[in-house]
Amino acid sequence: ERCGFPEVVLAEGKTADWVVQVVRRMREAGQDCLATRVSGEQFQHLAAEFPQAEVDHLARTFWLPTPGDRPPLVGDVLVVTAGTGDLPVAYEAINTARVMGANAELIADVGVAGLHRILRKRDRLAAADVVIVCAGMDGALPSVVGGLVDCPVIAVPTSIGYGAAFGGVAALLTMLNSCSAGVVTVNIDAGFKAGYAAALMVRKIAKS
Amino acid sequence: ERCGFPEVVLAEGKTADWVVQVVRRMREAGQDCLATRVSGEQFQHLAAEFPQAEVDHLARTFWLPTPGDRPPLVGDVLVVTAGTGDLPVAYEAINTARVMGANAELIADVGVAGLHRILRKRDRLAAADVVIVCAGMDGALPSVVGGLVDCPVIAVPTSIGYGAAFGGVAALLTMLNSCSAGVVTVNIDAGFKAGYAAALMVRKIAKS
Amino acid sequence: ERCGFPEVVLAEGKTADWVVQVVRRMREAGQDCLATRVSGEQFQHLAAEFPQAEVDHLARTFWLPTPGDRPPLVGDVLVVTAGTGDLPVAYEAINTARVMGANAELIADVGVAGLHRILRKRDRLAAADVVIVCAGMDGALPSVVGGLVDCPVIAVPTSIGYGAAFGGVAALLTMLNSCSAGVVTVNIDAGFKAGYAAALMVRKIAKS
Amino acid sequence: ERCGFPEVVLAEGKTADWVVQVVRRMREAGQDCLATRVSGEQFQHLAAEFPQAEVDHLARTFWLPTPGDRPPLVGDVLVVTAGTGDLPVAYEAINTARVMGANAELIADVGVAGLHRILRKRDRLAAADVVIVCAGMDGALPSVVGGLVDCPVIAVPTSIGYGAAFGGVAALLTMLNSCSAGVVTVNIDAGFKAGYAAALMVRKIAKS
Amino acid sequence: ERCGFPEVVLAEGKTADWVVQVVRRMREAGQDCLATRVSGEQFQHLAAEFPQAEVDHLARTFWLPTPGDRPPLVGDVLVVTAGTGDLPVAYEAINTARVMGANAELIADVGVAGLHRILRKRDRLAAADVVIVCAGMDGALPSVVGGLVDCPVIAVPTSIGYGAAFGGVAALLTMLNSCSAGVVTVNIDAGFKAGYAAALMVRKIAKS
Amino acid sequence: ERCGFPEVVLAEGKTADWVVQVVRRMREAGQDCLATRVSGEQFQHLAAEFPQAEVDHLARTFWLPTPGDRPPLVGDVLVVTAGTGDLPVAYEAINTARVMGANAELIADVGVAGLHRILRKRDRLAAADVVIVCAGMDGALPSVVGGLVDCPVIAVPTSIGYGAAFGGVAALLTMLNSCSAGVVTVNIDAGFKAGYAAALMVRKIAKS
Amino acid sequence: ERCGFPEVVLAEGKTADWVVQVVRRMREAGQDCLATRVSGEQFQHLAAEFPQAEVDHLARTFWLPTPGDRPPLVGDVLVVTAGTGDLPVAYEAINTARVMGANAELIADVGVAGLHRILRKRDRLAAADVVIVCAGMDGALPSVVGGLVDCPVIAVPTSIGYGAAFGGVAALLTMLNSCSAGVVTVNIDAGFKAGYAAALMVRKIAKS
Amino acid sequence: ERCGFPEVVLAEGKTADWVVQVVRRMREAGQDCLATRVSGEQFQHLAAEFPQAEVDHLARTFWLPTPGDRPPLVGDVLVVTAGTGDLPVAYEAINTARVMGANAELIADVGVAGLHRILRKRDRLAAADVVIVCAGMDGALPSVVGGLVDCPVIAVPTSIGYGAAFGGVAALLTMLNSCSAGVVTVNIDAGFKAGYAAALMVRKIAKS
Ligand SMILES: Nc1ncnc2c1ncn2[C@@H]1O[C@H](COP(=O)(O)O)[C@@H](O)[C@H]1O
Ligand SMILES: Nc1ncnc2c1ncn2[C@@H]1O[C@H](COP(=O)(O)O)[C@@H](O)[C@H]1O
Ligand SMILES: Nc1ncnc2c1ncn2[C@@H]1O[C@H](COP(=O)(O)O)[C@@H](O)[C@H]1O
Ligand SMILES: Nc1ncnc2c1ncn2[C@@H]1O[C@H](COP(=O)(O)O)[C@@H](O)[C@H]1O
Ligand SMILES: [Mg+2]
Ligand SMILES: [Mg+2]
Ligand SMILES: [Mg+2]
Ligand SMILES: [Mg+2]
Ligand SMILES: [Mg+2]
Ligand SMILES: [Mg+2]
Ligand SMILES: [Mg+2]
Ligand SMILES: [Mg+2]
Repeated sequence: ERCGFPEVVLAEGKTADWVVQVVRRMREAGQDCLATRVSGEQFQHLAAEFPQAEVDHLARTFWLPTPGDRPPLVGDVLVVTAGTGDLPVAYEAINTARVMGANAELIADVGVAGLHRILRKRDRLAAADVVIVCAGMDGALPSVVGGLVDCPVIAVPTSIGYGAAFGGVAALLTMLNSCSAGVVTVNIDAGFKAGYAAALMVRKIAKS
Repeated sequence: ERCGFPEVVLAEGKTADWVVQVVRRMREAGQDCLATRVSGEQFQHLAAEFPQAEVDHLARTFWLPTPGDRPPLVGDVLVVTAGTGDLPVAYEAINTARVMGANAELIADVGVAGLHRILRKRDRLAAADVVIVCAGMDGALPSVVGGLVDCPVIAVPTSIGYGAAFGGVAALLTMLNSCSAGVVTVNIDAGFKAGYAAALMVRKIAKS
Repeated sequence: ERCGFPEVVLAEGKTADWVVQVVRRMREAGQDCLATRVSGEQFQHLAAEFPQAEVDHLARTFWLPTPGDRPPLVGDVLVVTAGTGDLPVAYEAINTARVMGANAELIADVGVAGLHRILRKRDRLAAADVVIVCAGMDGALPSVVGGLVDCPVIAVPTSIGYGAAFGGVAALLTMLNSCSAGVVTVNIDAGFKAGYAAALMVRKIAKS
Repeated sequence: ERCGFPEVVLAEGKTADWVVQVVRRMREAGQDCLATRVSGEQFQHLAAEFPQAEVDHLARTFWLPTPGDRPPLVGDVLVVTAGTGDLPVAYEAINTARVMGANAELIADVGVAGLHRILRKRDRLAAADVVIVCAGMDGALPSVVGGLVDCPVIAVPTSIGYGAAFGGVAALLTMLNSCSAGVVTVNIDAGFKAGYAAALMVRKIAKS
Repeated sequence: ERCGFPEVVLAEGKTADWVVQVVRRMREAGQDCLATRVSGEQFQHLAAEFPQAEVDHLARTFWLPTPGDRPPLVGDVLVVTAGTGDLPVAYEAINTARVMGANAELIADVGVAGLHRILRKRDRLAAADVVIVCAGMDGALPSVVGGLVDCPVIAVPTSIGYGAAFGGVAALLTMLNSCSAGVVTVNIDAGFKAGYAAALMVRKIAKS
Repeated sequence: ERCGFPEVVLAEGKTADWVVQVVRRMREAGQDCLATRVSGEQFQHLAAEFPQAEVDHLARTFWLPTPGDRPPLVGDVLVVTAGTGDLPVAYEAINTARVMGANAELIADVGVAGLHRILRKRDRLAAADVVIVCAGMDGALPSVVGGLVDCPVIAVPTSIGYGAAFGGVAALLTMLNSCSAGVVTVNIDAGFKAGYAAALMVRKIAKS
Repeated sequence: ERCGFPEVVLAEGKTADWVVQVVRRMREAGQDCLATRVSGEQFQHLAAEFPQAEVDHLARTFWLPTPGDRPPLVGDVLVVTAGTGDLPVAYEAINTARVMGANAELIADVGVAGLHRILRKRDRLAAADVVIVCAGMDGALPSVVGGLVDCPVIAVPTSIGYGAAFGGVAALLTMLNSCSAGVVTVNIDAGFKAGYAAALMVRKIAKS
Repeated sequence: ERCGFPEVVLAEGKTADWVVQVVRRMREAGQDCLATRVSGEQFQHLAAEFPQAEVDHLARTFWLPTPGDRPPLVGDVLVVTAGTGDLPVAYEAINTARVMGANAELIADVGVAGLHRILRKRDRLAAADVVIVCAGMDGALPSVVGGLVDCPVIAVPTSIGYGAAFGGVAALLTMLNSCSAGVVTVNIDAGFKAGYAAALMVRKIAKS
C-alpha cells in the first residue's frame, strides 16, 4: 500500500520450498519482492522459477520487481567498510537502499589501522546525505567517520573477527558508545536495516 | 567551526568546578555550550556563574548560547515515550534537537500495553520527519511506531525497569531486533544522541 | 497415575534407538506417550515401529495415545505467532495442549510491525481462556496482546532472529519485562511448556 | 473500564510528589489505585494525604480502593516462599491478587534444603487453583512444587542471594529451565506480576 | 610418582594420532593411563593399538592400567543423576573414581519433578561417604540431595537442556547458589573432576 | 536434630530486629546458632541482647552455642589466602568449620605472583585433610595448591579486584576451569559454604 | 630484592588504618612504597603520618620512596587519553612508570571524534618507545594510534561512559579486537598495570 | 612502506580464491606476505600457486617472503604454553615474531598443576626480553611466569577447555586480572597479535 515499499522476506531458516511459495504469492499479488539472507540452496530453487530476478550471491539478496518503469533513484547514500570481510553486509545495505529508491555507492576497506585510506575519501564523505559504516572486530570506523561528516551515520556491526569479538558484539558495543554524536546503530550484520533506514531518510529529503 | 553545532560537555563524573571552568572557557571562545547529564551540585555551581543559562532539571541539561539571534528552527522531530519514567531521556533528546536547530515536540505515556493511546496519535506521527521513541522495560514501542510511519525511527532504550531489565539492556536488545525495518538504535538513556542524529537528518532535509 | 497426563520424552540429544526403546516401554505400561523435539532420524526409527502414531514434522512432535476413547477436549487455548518462522514452536504448544485435553487454535503471522493484523483478531482474542504468544526477534507481540485481553498470556520467546537476538535471549528479556501485567514467560522455544501450562489452566476451569 | 482492574502505579524511581499527584488524580477519577515498590519517603507523603489507604511496608504496596462494597474474593491462589527473605515479594503477590479480587494465602519458608517442610503441605498445595512460588538463590522450589500439584505454578525469582546469584538471575534461569512442565516464570522480584496473572486465572475459573 | 594416581589425557580437540602417541609413551613409562572425552574416531585408533584397554563409549573414557594387581577399591562414592541424559557425565565420574581407587555406584533418573524417586533412595544416600549429583536444565537435584545427607555433595552441572539452559550455565548457577550448605560444584559436564575429587576424599577416609 | 549441626542464619538483607528475634527463638529452642554476613548495625543489636556470643567483625560472623561442653575438634582443615583482602572470607570459612566441629588453621597472603611464599608452606599443605583456598582477581592460587597436595581443594572466589574482575566472576571461572583435577568450587565470597563442606569431609574421616 | 621495583599496595577496599600500617612496615624495611586507588579517607590518614610522601589526588596514588638519590629516568613512555575523563587513569600510569624509573609524558583529550587532534601529534607519537592509550566509551583511539606508530601500544579501557559502556567492558572489547596488530590490553582502569609493563619494556631497552 | 613489516591477511572466513588473489597481488607489489588462520582448503589452493611458500599446518600460517636476503633476527622472544593443546596458538606467535624479524623460542607444556615444570625453566625465562604465555582453561600460567621474570609478559588466552571455559573467556578474564603487574593481554587465540607486539618490543631494544 505504501508506494515504493517492497515486501521483504527474511529467507534464513526457512525451507527453499517455503521461500519460493512466498515469492510466488507476492508476484501474483503484484508486489515487488526482496528476499534477504538467502542460502545457496534457496537461490537454486528461486532461480529455477524466477530466472529474471536479480540475485547477488555475495550480498545474499534476491530482488524481483514488478514489471514496468521505476522512478529514478534519489539522494546519496554512501556505504563504507572497514575491511573486505564486511563486503557482504555492505552490499545487502546497498541493494536494499536501491530497491527502496535511493542511490547507494560503496567505499571499501578503509579501516582505521591505516588512517590515510579514509582521510583520502574526505570530500566524497562530505557530500553524502547519510553514511552507512560496516565494521567488525573493533568497530572503530563509525566514530572516525562521524567526526568527518555532518550528516547522520548508521553503524552496522559485522560478525567479522574471532575470540572476544563475540560474533559482532564487540563492534556493536563500540558503535553504541561512539564518541561521535551523530552515530546510530542497527543489529549485527543488519545491512538490510541500515539500507532501509537510510532510504527512508533520503526519501524524506527528496520529497521536501 | 561547523556552523550551528554547539560544543557539548558530558558533565557526569566530573567535579562541579571542572564543569564550570570548561563552560567558562567555551563562553570566552564565543561558542554555544550544551552540557548534559548535569548533577544537582553541578547545576548549583553553574547557576551561580551563568544565571542567564537555560537549565532543565528534569532533562539534566544546561544550555548557554552565545548572544544574538539564532536561525529559526527547522523540520519536525517527534519524541514519543512509553511511560512517564522515560520523560527525562525524552527531554534530553528534545533539548538537544532544539539547540541543534530543529523543531522538536513531545507525545508522552503511550506505551503498548494500552494500544489506543498510540493509535490515537497516528496522524501526528505520520506528519513527522523523524520519530524518536524512548522506552524502558520491554522496549516494545518503537516496533509499533515503526509500523505506523514511513520515516526513520530512532529508538532510545531507557534504564526504567527492574530485575531482568538489566538497566536498559532488555529494551536495547528489543530495539536492535525490532521487526520494523526503519528502526535504528542509540545507547541506553542516550536522549542526547537521538536528538543530535535527528537534528542532523532534518537539517539535511531543510537544506535540500 | 494422574489421569490425562501423558508421559513426555524430551527426544533431543538421545539416540534414535534409545527413544524407540523408551516409547516401547511406555506403550507396554499402557501409558499415553508424547515425544518432543524429535529429529528426522528419530522420526524414521519411530515410524518403522509405531506406524499408527501421530507425527508432526513441523512441530517435531510424536504422539502415541493408548487405544480407546478419550474425553472431549475442554477450554479455549489460543496460540498466536508474530511471524511464520515461529510456527514450529506454536505447533508444539498446540499439540501439547491437545494431548493434555485442551482445545487449541492458531492465529499466525500477526506481528506488531503491521498492527492491523492483530487488531483484526481482537474479538477472537477476547474469547480465549488463555493466550499463548510465540515471537522471536524483538518479542514485542505479547505486550500488545496482553493489553487486548483480560486472560493470562503465556509468552514463548523463539530463537528466530540473528545477531543481537542471541538465539532468543532478546525476546525472552522483552517478555520478562512486558509492560502488560498479565504476561508470564517460559523458556526459549518451549512451546511444550506453554501448551502444558495452558492446558493445566483450562482443565481447572473445566472442573469448576 | 475493565471492571475490577485497579490502576497500578510503579512508584520506584519517581519523586514522592509525583506519586502523590498521580494517586490524587486517580482518586478524583473514581478509580481504585494500587502502588507498588513504594519507598519509605513515598509512604510518608502518601500517608499524609491518604490516611485511609492500606499500606504494607514489608510488601512496599499502597492500596486505595474507591469507597463502597467490593465483590467477594474468588478462587484459591497459594503463595509459597523458599525463605523468609522472599516474604516482601510474596506479600506483593498476595496484595496484588487480593485487590484483583482473588483469595490468596501464604506458606512461608519451605525451601528444598529441608524437604519435610514442603512435603508437610502437600494436601494444602493439592487444593490450590494456582500456586505462586517465590525463591531466590538456587530457585529450586518451583520444580519441586510443580511435581506435587496438577495446577499451574507461577515461579517468581527473587534477588535474595549474593555472588553468582547475580541479583536473581541464577534463580530466574533455574525457573525457566524447570524440569516440571507446568511452571511459568515472571521477572525477578515481580510479585506484582505473579499476583496479577494468578488473579486473571482464578477469575476465569470463577466466571465459568 | 604419587601412588595410585593415573596420568590423565583430555583427548578432546586433539588428533587421533596424537592421542595414540601420548598413550603409547605413558605405557612405555609404566604409567596407568586414563583418557577422557574421547571421540569415536579416537576410540578406533586407540582400539587398534590397545585392544586390552577398557573403553566406555557412553562415558567417552579409555582406561589402560599397567599390568598387575591393583589394591581393593575403598570408600563409598554414590553418583546420582536427575535424568537419563545426564548418564554420560555420571559414568565419566564413576570410571574416574574407580581408576583412582574408590568404590562408585549409580542411582539414575531421580530428578525433583517426581520427588518420590529420590525419597525412595534416602537410606542408600545416607550411607554414602560422598555423593556426586549430575543434573542439567534447572540443576535443582543437588539442593534436594544436600538436605537428605550429612556428607559433602559434589554437584556437576550438565549441558542437557535448551534455550536459557545456556549449555549448562543455568544448572551451574543453581548449584553455586544451592541453599544446601554442603554442596560444592565443578565445571559443566566435568564428571571427571567430580570423580577425582570424590576419590581424594574417600582415600583420606580410608587412610585414617 | 542432626547432632553437631548448628542452625545458620544468613543475616544479610534482613532488619536487625528480625535477626535478633530469630536468634532468640533458636536459643529458646536450645539450638546452637551461627549467623553470617552480619552488618555493623545487626552486630550492635545482637551484642545488646547476647553479650556472651562470639562475634568476629572481620569475618562478619556471630556464634552463640548452647551452654555445656562441646566435643573436641577433629581433622585438619587448612585455609589459605592469596592476598590480605581475602581474609574476611577466609575467617568466615574458619569460623564455620570450627562451629561444625573441625580444626581449622590459616595461611595468609601467599598468592602466586610471589611463588616462594606458597612453596615455603609445602609441608604444612601436605599434612592437611582438605585445603580451602580463597582468592580474588585472577583466582590462580587453587590451581597451584591443587598441584602440591593429594587431598581435595575447595576453591572460594572472592570479590576482591576491579574492572574485569566483575565482583569475583573472573576468579570463579578460573577456579571452575582449574587444571588441577582435585579442585571443587563454591559461590563467590562463600567462605561459609567452603567451611561447612570441609567440616563434613573431616567429620567423615573422624568417624571412620 | 629486584632493584628499582617498589612494593605496591592496592589500597582499595582496605581500612585506612590497615593501609597506614602496611606503609609503615615497608618503610621500616627500607622499601620504596607505592599505593594506588587510594581513597580520600586513606589519604588523610597517610598524610598525617607521612607528610613527606608525594600524593596525587587525581591519580589516587601515594608514593613514598626511600631517602637518597634515585637513578635518572630512562626511555620514553607516552601516555595518551581520548577524553579528559580518562585523566585519572592516565596519571596513575604516568606515576607508576616514573616510580619504576621510566620517563613518562602526557597527551590529553585527542579522541577520534576530532581526528585532527591526534594527527597533530604524529611526530611526537613516532618518537615514543611505547605508547599507552587510555580511552572509555567506544575505546577506538588505540586502533588509530596503533596505525600511526611502530612501537607497541598498551591500551587501557576506562570506565568512562554510561549505558552499554558497561563500566568499561565496551572499551575493553574494542581494544582486545583492535585491527591494529601491535595493540595489547590491560584491565579496565588499570593505569597501574599499563605504566608498570611500559616501564619494564623501556628498562629492557635502556639496559641493552 | 615501514621496512620489515609484512602485509598480513586474516584468511579466516574468506574464500580460497579470494585469498589466493590477495596473495598474488601482494607478491606482484613486491611485498612480503603473511596469512594467518588459514584453513585446509585455503592451504591447498595456496600451495598449488605458491609452492615455494613456508606453510605451517599446526600454526595455520602461510609465509611468502620476497626473494633476497633478510636481516638477521634480533632479540629474544620466549613463547611458553601451559598445555600441548595451546601449541597452535604458540606457533602462530612464533611464526609471526620471526617474520617480523625477531628470534622466538618455545617452552611447551609447563602448566601450573605441576609447578616443577615451570620452575625448572627459571633461568631460561630470566634471560628473555619478553615472554609470551599461551594458556587455556584456568589461564593461570601468566601470573606465575610474571612473578619469575622482570620483563613484560604478553598473555594469550586460548580456547582450550569446555563448559565454563566459554571458549577462552575464562582464561581471558584470569589474565586481565593477573596479580602479576607486568602482564598485558591480547584477544583469545591471538598468537598473531602477541608475536607482533613482542617483535615490536625487541626491535625497539635492538635499535637502541
Ligand atoms: N535481513 C533482515 N534483517 C532484519 N529483518 C529482516 C531482514 N529481511 C527481512 N526482514 C524483516 O522480516 C520481516 C519478514 O519476516 P517473515 O514474515 O518471517 O518473512 C519483514 O517485515 C522484514 O522487514
Ligand atoms: N520440549 C520440552 N521442553 C522442556 N521439557 C521437556 C520437553 N519435552 C519433555 N520435557 C520434560 O523432560 C522430562 C523427560 O526427560 P528425560 O527423562 O530426560 O526424557 C519430562 O519430565 C518432560 O516434562
Ligand atoms: N511492581 C510492578 N512490577 C511491574 N509492573 C508494574 C508494577 N507496578 C506497576 N506496574 C505496571 O506499571 C504500569 C504503570 O507504569 P507508570 O505509568 O509508569 O506508572 C502499569 O501498567 C502497571 O501494570
Ligand atoms: N590472526 C589475526 N588476528 C588478528 N588480526 C589479524 C590476524 N591476521 C591478520 N590480522 C589483521 O587483519 C588485517 C587484514 O584484514 P583483511 O583486510 O580483512 O584481510 C591486517 O591488518 C592484520 O593486521
Ligand atoms: Mg583490509
Ligand atoms: Mg504510564
Ligand atoms: Mg511475516
Ligand atoms: Mg529459611
Ligand atoms: Mg527422566
Ligand atoms: Mg599481598
Ligand atoms: Mg574531550
Ligand atoms: Mg599437559
